[in-house]
Amino acid sequence: VGNKQPALFLRTLDGERSEHTPIWLMRQAGRYLPEYREVRERAGSFLNLCYSPAMAAEVTLQPIRRFGFDAAILFSDILVIPHALGQHVEFVEGEGPRLDPIVEGAALAKLSERPDPARLAAIYETVSRVRGRLGPETALIGFCGAPWTVASYMIAGKGTPDQAPIRLTAYRDGAFLSALVDRLVAASADYLVGQLEAGAQVVQIFESFAGALPPQLFERWSLEPIGRIATAVKAVKPDAKIIVFARGAAGGKLEALAQSGIADGVGLDWGVDLGFARERIQPRQVTQGNLDPLALVAGGEALDRGIDAILNTLGGKPHIFNLGHGILPETPIAHVERLVKRVRGN
Amino acid sequence: VGNKQPALFLRTLDGERSEHTPIWLMRQAGRYLPEYREVRERAGSFLNLCYSPAMAAEVTLQPIRRFGFDAAILFSDILVIPHALGQHVEFVEGEGPRLDPIVEGAALAKLSERPDPARLAAIYETVSRVRGRLGPETALIGFCGAPWTVASYMIAGKGTPDQAPIRLTAYRDGAFLSALVDRLVAASADYLVGQLEAGAQVVQIFESFAGALPPQLFERWSLEPIGRIATAVKAVKPDAKIIVFARGAAGGKLEALAQSGIADGVGLDWGVDLGFARERIQPRQVTQGNLDPLALVAGGEALDRGIDAILNTLGGKPHIFNLGHGILPETPIAHVERLVKRVRGN
Repeated sequence: VGNKQPALFLRTLDGERSEHTPIWLMRQAGRYLPEYREVRERAGSFLNLCYSPAMAAEVTLQPIRRFGFDAAILFSDILVIPHALGQHVEFVEGEGPRLDPIVEGAALAKLSERPDPARLAAIYETVSRVRGRLGPETALIGFCGAPWTVASYMIAGKGTPDQAPIRLTAYRDGAFLSALVDRLVAASADYLVGQLEAGAQVVQIFESFAGALPPQLFERWSLEPIGRIATAVKAVKPDAKIIVFARGAAGGKLEALAQSGIADGVGLDWGVDLGFARERIQPRQVTQGNLDPLALVAGGEALDRGIDAILNTLGGKPHIFNLGHGILPETPIAHVERLVKRVRGN
Repeated sequence: VGNKQPALFLRTLDGERSEHTPIWLMRQAGRYLPEYREVRERAGSFLNLCYSPAMAAEVTLQPIRRFGFDAAILFSDILVIPHALGQHVEFVEGEGPRLDPIVEGAALAKLSERPDPARLAAIYETVSRVRGRLGPETALIGFCGAPWTVASYMIAGKGTPDQAPIRLTAYRDGAFLSALVDRLVAASADYLVGQLEAGAQVVQIFESFAGALPPQLFERWSLEPIGRIATAVKAVKPDAKIIVFARGAAGGKLEALAQSGIADGVGLDWGVDLGFARERIQPRQVTQGNLDPLALVAGGEALDRGIDAILNTLGGKPHIFNLGHGILPETPIAHVERLVKRVRGN
């Protein structure tokens, strides 16, 4: 027993139901923590924080020290891939990412075929430092964005409601979108393998914009490219575990993801009905999620009820506790402490 | 035959499958039409346009003249109800609606119990003018917003991504939200009855923000208040038909709506899978929707494929053709002409 056993998080993702439900939170290294804000301030630009192994490792570890979560997730951003391919990317305070939009083949041809190894080396160095400083009881998760989501930023040059620019591209110029997605599939697979080789044990693929994909486009532009990434990763790292978090995919899309067998774990956003998750997703895959981040902000009875509903409905099978989206900056730390305690039954 | 028969739209909503599929478009009176932009310019403020029967009737009729749609929809806005209750509402060019937020009981107590009849009288006058100028082959649709959607604007003071302010209110202060929703239920029912008495034959209830309602809150804050409005309307106008358009409700929420029997017609946004709609919604209710508005912007093959998929999948039962959300200002008029022609099989 003890240290010889794999981390609870890894055993759960492997399909083993334990007495305890492991817990981590999306964006757990973030602005709700004063120690994060201090490092973020020091880093200057957001991208500089992502590319500075000492600082990025520090913020990755902060929530583990404070809350003892069962998994750490690399601090980085899904837009390092377009950046490493040569697209101009910056993060404007209070506005979010800004990129020079790439809207046709000629602009795509100017990007590199493969990501700049120098940029990604800094991230692998972060992974390796974090792994060296985590105990065996804590798993380390790497990640990347799914091609549809990353491409939507690359095409629009920013976040957009309902991702109209990429949807219009899908209707008007499938050949260009296909070439862009292929580029991202190759780059993302390499990038995930690099993180796994540096010490990550699990990778999560974030399809943040699955919601605005019309169902008839979901297979072609989301599932299929994610599947190719997973296949390429497992060809090199057969023991790697993959979690796919497709936000807004409640209902048929989520079921299609579960049926595809692409993922070892399926992330549930807070829009997913718990009964649906138990009946349609859990028989096929380990689930992860899905507390409404606003219930964590609210605290009190709403929080307790939310936690209990998830544990009571999904806790009978292997389940990883998480939020249904990233933790919000205004979340009180005391509410996170209460959450961890309640999930662990203390 | 001929003019003695009710309009195709009404027969279809009554469950009769005809040789032709009726068609209208959400926001069909809107900025994609040059004749609308001319009147809008002349009106000065957006609310002035809503409250001016001559101009509002004119823009309501414009798309009927141009395209011969099977139904006209009153030109107005869901925020006339908070405005008629005494909340400050204005529309800021390029930014959308701005209201003085109402976040607790004391602010709610300052609003009227019932909407100001003088304000709503102008809208009923619009309805009556439009009905008088439409032929019997064209149905007239009135509308209101659903309480959750309208309350989300009243609480946040504007549109917000994922409606965080009202969700937080639902978690923290259910008693206040309940009182606000009750006020809106009563006001909306009166308002719809007023529109029906003025000449509308059908009313559509817009739950634009069903998507961000966690499933465990959907019944309490969306279905239940909409159901009370429907019951109150049908108590006075038993022949009135009600369409509910709950945007973002794809999957379990939409099925719950269909099972509730609240609606005569169920609107489908462009995120709803057509197979799901055929199997789970059509056996219970007439469907309406759901072409992606961006497919209409794109035109060409993407448009034709989108139209055909809807007609082939849902056309075997009573179905009303529509977009899955409002028509976009950049939509080419030639694409709308092509759409109408193809739906009518010409």
